[in-house]
Amino acid sequence: MASSAGQTNSGGTPPPAPPVRRRPGGRTSRTRARVLDAVRAELGERGYDGLTLDAVAARAGVHRATVYRRWRDVGGLLADLLAATADDDWLPRDTGSLLGDLTALNEENQDALTARPSIAAALLAASFRSEEAERGLLRLWADRYARCEVIVARAVARGELPPDTDARRLLVAATAPLYHQLMLLRTPPDPGLPAQAARTAVLAASAGAFAPGEAVS
Amino acid sequence: MASSAGQTNSGGTPPPAPPVRRRPGGRTSRTRARVLDAVRAELGERGYDGLTLDAVAARAGVHRATVYRRWRDVGGLLADLLAATADDDWLPRDTGSLLGDLTALNEENQDALTARPSIAAALLAASFRSEEAERGLLRLWADRYARCEVIVARAVARGELPPDTDARRLLVAATAPLYHQLMLLRTPPDPGLPAQAARTAVLAASAGAFAPGEAVS
Repeated sequence: MASSAGQTNSGGTPPPAPPVRRRPGGRTSRTRARVLDAVRAELGERGYDGLTLDAVAARAGVHRATVYRRWRDVGGLLADLLAATADDDWLPRDTGSLLGDLTALNEENQDALTARPSIAAALLAASFRSEEAERGLLRLWADRYARCEVIVARAVARGELPPDTDARRLLVAATAPLYHQLMLLRTPPDPGLPAQAARTAVLAASAGAFAPGEAVS
Repeated sequence: MASSAGQTNSGGTPPPAPPVRRRPGGRTSRTRARVLDAVRAELGERGYDGLTLDAVAARAGVHRATVYRRWRDVGGLLADLLAATADDDWLPRDTGSLLGDLTALNEENQDALTARPSIAAALLAASFRSEEAERGLLRLWADRYARCEVIVARAVARGELPPDTDARRLLVAATAPLYHQLMLLRTPPDPGLPAQAARTAVLAASAGAFAPGEAVS
């Protein structure tokens, strides 16, 4: 049952803990699931500053030595939590329209960022603290943007968008205002914001804002 | 020369250090300027985790006791730095067009967020760590958004926007993609992004995206 996270090197710098490989149904898998559930709970309740391996081990009912050996430090726990988060079958909702799909995406994001406790908000905050959390978050962002490109592909197939639409720029325009308000300006959640931000991006797209190499006029 | 920051209370919780009142040209003012210059330099070089009152005092050439008495802790230093940042005569550039004004604003933001070291990025990161830094940053955001409303007012006066345009929503739509890319997605700076994001917001505005109470259609 040796996992790649148990490797050590002989240098002075410990290697970053790679995510534990999935072993569906195995003991390693069950231990990991219990530990990551405990990380989510501790992170949500106490935030990054309150997260410790001892508290995670106690909450998970897993030997401290196991947690220290496999995850090594808080950065290792966060990186693995982010890897587990990316390792799901999430797909954006298919509502039948570009506006509907972007609104649904923003609503999911708003729900995740304003849940109490919000694991998503805690992970974003942790990415300013821990380089491993930052790397894990960047991998998760890349994965989520890749999965969301289907929203643009469907709109192209329906004739709502031209085929050469820059999917990434459209997705950023549709979703950034919500993150900006909630995470940077720290405004209270606004039930109208998901649809407003989605509609702004759709109107801009209709006016050609996300065409490639468009000159600023 | 007693300043309000020298007050204490008798409770167990120290009061937040209020900003030192300006005394243009006075010794208090010069001390504050030296200390805040040192905070900027230390924050830029070492980040929040490396910021200490001792290092700031040494760099500023100010007695440790003065720094501890007036600013008390790292949160006090950051709050005062943010207050000093807001206490300037900054105004958005007047380029003669809405697109030009929003592009110039985004260019200023991109320059500030990608400077090495970037005080703006360090303060944003610190706002996830220190409640005093967060409160200071929210005051600074409120001040900056209020000053930027003139961009929308000028566009209304030129007939580029309808009079009932929601200035805040337009400003967020124009500027959020840049913060999103640089601070959350951590993508490298893109010289085309300031104008692209500005143009997207202008196109959306032309299509009525920021009219008040607009129903989602």
